[in-house]
Amino acid sequence: MPNCVIRSIQAIDARYPLPPGAGSDAVHTNPVYAMALTHLKTVGGPSGAGLALTLGEGNRLVCDAIGMLARPLVGRSIDEVMAHFGDEQRGMANDPTLRWLGPHKGVVHLALASITNACWDLWAKSRGLPLWKLLLDLEDEALLATLDLSYLEDMLTHDEALALLRAQRASRPERNSILDTGYPGYDTSVGWMGYDDAKVRALTQQAIDRGFTAFKLKVGSIDDERDLRRAEMLRQMAGEAGILMFDANQRWDAPEAMRMCKALAKFKPLWIEEPTHPDDIHAHVELARAIAPVRIAAGEHMPNRVVFKNMMRYGGVHFLQADCTRLAGVSEFLAVSLMAKKFGLPIVPHVGDMGQIHQHLVLFNHIALNDEVHFLEHIPHLQKHFIFPAKVKEGCYMPPQEPGASTDMRVGRKD
Amino acid sequence: MPNCVIRSIQAIDARYPLPPGAGSDAVHTNPVYAMALTHLKTVGGPSGAGLALTLGEGNRLVCDAIGMLARPLVGRSIDEVMAHFGDEQRGMANDPTLRWLGPHKGVVHLALASITNACWDLWAKSRGLPLWKLLLDLEDEALLATLDLSYLEDMLTHDEALALLRAQRASRPERNSILDTGYPGYDTSVGWMGYDDAKVRALTQQAIDRGFTAFKLKVGSIDDERDLRRAEMLRQMAGEAGILMFDANQRWDAPEAMRMCKALAKFKPLWIEEPTHPDDIHAHVELARAIAPVRIAAGEHMPNRVVFKNMMRYGGVHFLQADCTRLAGVSEFLAVSLMAKKFGLPIVPHVGDMGQIHQHLVLFNHIALNDEVHFLEHIPHLQKHFIFPAKVKEGCYMPPQEPGASTDMRVGRKD
Repeated sequence: MPNCVIRSIQAIDARYPLPPGAGSDAVHTNPVYAMALTHLKTVGGPSGAGLALTLGEGNRLVCDAIGMLARPLVGRSIDEVMAHFGDEQRGMANDPTLRWLGPHKGVVHLALASITNACWDLWAKSRGLPLWKLLLDLEDEALLATLDLSYLEDMLTHDEALALLRAQRASRPERNSILDTGYPGYDTSVGWMGYDDAKVRALTQQAIDRGFTAFKLKVGSIDDERDLRRAEMLRQMAGEAGILMFDANQRWDAPEAMRMCKALAKFKPLWIEEPTHPDDIHAHVELARAIAPVRIAAGEHMPNRVVFKNMMRYGGVHFLQADCTRLAGVSEFLAVSLMAKKFGLPIVPHVGDMGQIHQHLVLFNHIALNDEVHFLEHIPHLQKHFIFPAKVKEGCYMPPQEPGASTDMRVGRKD
Repeated sequence: MPNCVIRSIQAIDARYPLPPGAGSDAVHTNPVYAMALTHLKTVGGPSGAGLALTLGEGNRLVCDAIGMLARPLVGRSIDEVMAHFGDEQRGMANDPTLRWLGPHKGVVHLALASITNACWDLWAKSRGLPLWKLLLDLEDEALLATLDLSYLEDMLTHDEALALLRAQRASRPERNSILDTGYPGYDTSVGWMGYDDAKVRALTQQAIDRGFTAFKLKVGSIDDERDLRRAEMLRQMAGEAGILMFDANQRWDAPEAMRMCKALAKFKPLWIEEPTHPDDIHAHVELARAIAPVRIAAGEHMPNRVVFKNMMRYGGVHFLQADCTRLAGVSEFLAVSLMAKKFGLPIVPHVGDMGQIHQHLVLFNHIALNDEVHFLEHIPHLQKHFIFPAKVKEGCYMPPQEPGASTDMRVGRKD
């Protein structure tokens, strides 16, 4: 469909209330999962659907920003847009009248995420391919042309990025087995902050029965003892071989983080997540030094590739939780993935998309970049709202086969 | 007026188109100065006016966010709100349904800036004092209660902040002479990117005739030679004793910044401003090392106190251009000022408020914190739109005498 032309752009403020306690953490006490959706309507072709997560009322600000930023796409064919999408995206990110609101962060950047994801979805649909297959089929130069690598020149040049991709080409077939086996998910929905012990226990047992072996617990309770008690309970249920992650959602200041990370270390987490403010690179670095061998995960609130570059350079994070609904969509996620490859750090996405897009991106990172950690967060609360929800069998994400980025939603209450 | 109660909150999207070329820089090519205004109406008392700058269309997003964030203030007396404003502000900044949009950056944080500034204006008016006088009159503990120092604990505790204030108390009278003399401004309006050489020359001559001795030039032209030619021209006009600053507005990537800063060094600028992406702490640090003794200024796009803390710790910036319309208003500006005092770094504000609020804050920082650099940017384009525009005589800012924060505007075209 070479003439798949974008006729109009619609931003939809879709909100999905959750059951009591679901989605709650130390700083987001009563979230509504809200998706700022971008719909790209075409003349006679498929529609592109993109999304970015927010947690409630502010969702309409992101929708308004989508309307402002996406205008340059109207009347253009998706092939033309994606042929140099790095430039297109850079143009939108640096819109002279909107750039001041970031730059490259906050509401305008969330809007750019949704728009970018819609473009990728449309491109994949127009070729009849699932996103992961489109990404794997692209020539290296064509892939790089979809990325905005500006402000990374001192760390990752275009030629270095090309070399990283090329170096893994020959061994790709060795990693294709993941397309048959899928790869493990870990369950975040067992341990929300608002759940009482009995509920955490029951949900963990259900997850174990469904094949999961890795579980996340929200920490950062007002009462430290509650964190420690729940961590101990979860470790007992998961067994010594089970994988645990503890997630403080930025609740602690630096001295608190130091104290609590040390106290939680005895439960042997794979990582402790968002121990303090996401902008505080120095605090992460100090913490990483002090709590080793316990490792730190962060990224869901790191707004752009420049912040990721700094966090990698200064060495504050061991697991990079890039999120294509916080970063500027699939494209900036891939730029960060290339940097991470250079640094030898694993990307384990945070799933603001509920894993729908990231299930594709993990496949790409494994096959094309030889990323050794292939592991994805699982949050099931919105499954019924997606047209093609991620398939998780025996605790494993199975490769999606439908064309696109798996982003089409049954639209919820508009506000 | 102890019963000055906030009855309602209004957000106003005020836009002020500029003459051709005015306000233009390397990344903001055709700005409209737009102010997201917060009006706090009271029962029978004065109104509080706050503002935050944006550069055009996105201004209405900030206004919408003001409406969402400011609701907790309705029905409260300004004395009650300001008695623990640090807590109030922290509550708004961490609103569980809006925090995801930042946190503490972008549209929601600009909105918090405008709201915070309105609260300070109302408080000062309710006491019949100009803001600088209110700030100087406050007891140290009362001042600290207006600040949110969270996430600074590893660098500046409450007790350390208190000690910094107390240490300067006894010597305050020695610095009161600034209330008679005022302090110098520097002129940014001579060297906008869109002005041709003749216009820069004419405006610089006018500024010299009006008593200015310090001038800023926009750099980051597509053609490097243009930057160098203009810098040389300005140095010739200003003379060896004149003070020049060059401002790239983030235009350069790290290698370009390295090259251009070295090339511009021969014109002996006081600083080179925003040489690259504002989130790129590491690039600033490398650059600072490489171009010494030339110094770096930045801050107008550093969104919050946590980023400032990191930039100070890693040592990427010599002049901190904090801006109370980018940071969360007067309160976060003061928190950053206290940190800067600890680090021995000067605050030279960027004037998103056109200098109206900052003229007060420079007085406070000089008298109460013994900040040695007292020097403020001057951008005159909106003077006629303020009810009490800053008074600049012989190139010096003279202390405002009217009650409040000098933020009342004649409201421009609404959109």
